[in-house]
Amino acid sequence: MSDPAPEPGFVSLVSAGPGDPELLTLKAARRLAEAEVVLFDDLASGPVLDHAGPQAELIAVGKRAGRPSARQEVVNQLIVQHAQAGRRVVRLKSGDAGIFGRLEEELIALAEAGIPFEIVPGVTSASAAAAAFGMPLTRRLTARRVQFVTGADITGQLPQDINWAALADPTVTTVVFMGQRSFPKLAEGLAMHGLPGTTPALLAEAVGHPGQRLIASTVAELAQMLQAQGPASQPGLILYGPLALPKQAG
Amino acid sequence: MSDPAPEPGFVSLVSAGPGDPELLTLKAARRLAEAEVVLFDDLASGPVLDHAGPQAELIAVGKRAGRPSARQEVVNQLIVQHAQAGRRVVRLKSGDAGIFGRLEEELIALAEAGIPFEIVPGVTSASAAAAAFGMPLTRRLTARRVQFVTGADITGQLPQDINWAALADPTVTTVVFMGQRSFPKLAEGLAMHGLPGTTPALLAEAVGHPGQRLIASTVAELAQMLQAQGPASQPGLILYGPLALPKQAG
Repeated sequence: MSDPAPEPGFVSLVSAGPGDPELLTLKAARRLAEAEVVLFDDLASGPVLDHAGPQAELIAVGKRAGRPSARQEVVNQLIVQHAQAGRRVVRLKSGDAGIFGRLEEELIALAEAGIPFEIVPGVTSASAAAAAFGMPLTRRLTARRVQFVTGADITGQLPQDINWAALADPTVTTVVFMGQRSFPKLAEGLAMHGLPGTTPALLAEAVGHPGQRLIASTVAELAQMLQAQGPASQPGLILYGPLALPKQAG
Repeated sequence: MSDPAPEPGFVSLVSAGPGDPELLTLKAARRLAEAEVVLFDDLASGPVLDHAGPQAELIAVGKRAGRPSARQEVVNQLIVQHAQAGRRVVRLKSGDAGIFGRLEEELIALAEAGIPFEIVPGVTSASAAAAAFGMPLTRRLTARRVQFVTGADITGQLPQDINWAALADPTVTTVVFMGQRSFPKLAEGLAMHGLPGTTPALLAEAVGHPGQRLIASTVAELAQMLQAQGPASQPGLILYGPLALPKQAG
């Protein structure tokens, strides 16, 4: 008697949250516990993977910010191949998978291969960074918009097509992902477009990880500091806008 | 022998996520299990509260979008009073507490009363809505910025000080919170500022709740539909921007 044909696989694109394993959702923990294959980025690794069961094959796909993008195709292929073998695949992505997580490429690969999938949303690092500083991202009167931007395009440089009217708006909280390297250049442009250099700015590196570093400064001073410091050794976010801490605001 | 003085209380400002109880974080579940008092909004109620232990006093503070803001002071007082009685307080807020969650007012009240607190970040409804549609909020080439705005200021109307250059940008994903009522007016302004009426728009109501409703449309058509429909019966989010679904994008 031959084996039955494998059931079609299923892919869960699971958000791992910002790094603190306690900021995993119950749904993400359950998907990990049930997974037969877990494909994970370096950034999403560590204690979060402890939720995977003993049956799970854990595969590091090793993507890091700044690497050339060819690698994404290999990841797409791996996801599709494991699913086509009828396995229950978890693709674990750091932060919220839908925010600067290169989700689109994997969704297209899955759609083209006709593989059923779901997206499990998670806590974005932007929310975790603000929480670590004890701050909200929006304020009822002074910050009625919040925006997330990336400090690096596919070449690793500051994107060319920046909407300066949007980014230099002093009544908005802006969160720059992957922006430590290009922030000095960004800050120059912001100043040219009217944002005061004294605007509060926060740097949050490795939020929720053992190496967490939080720095409260201003746009101009943080730009100077990052310029002097050279390449960042840890992933980080920069927040700027009407970010006075509650004690000061009271 | 007199009782020892009560230990100072502690307040956890806990994000409940978008409504699906599985999208609670492990940390939020643990804070609820340990809580002596849970102060919750209507929007954050339901199965999420099942994580509270039998010792917990559950207090509905009944805030809903659109109500007059005086009520916020009562909530602030309740939080402070329970904490000053030495209790372990969870203030449960829907979505991510830091995004349109009126967190600032409560943080100021806590800071003024000298009560120690933490913020537990959570999954924002914006991430859950995009995931429900099977879409990312950012795209590597076409949506390198994502912004969250509110469709209602403290009077319940469309805010007056809109940055149209930011909101009418066709290369950005915009998520409008509490915007069903004012969207026809917003769409008018977007058209005047150059955003094509054919720009994809999505309406996500009651994401993760039993009454979930997802509608894929365009900015112009969704505005017409909401105008004709009258007041929304459920909380909802509107997303617009380069939101073609992956199958179409491939």
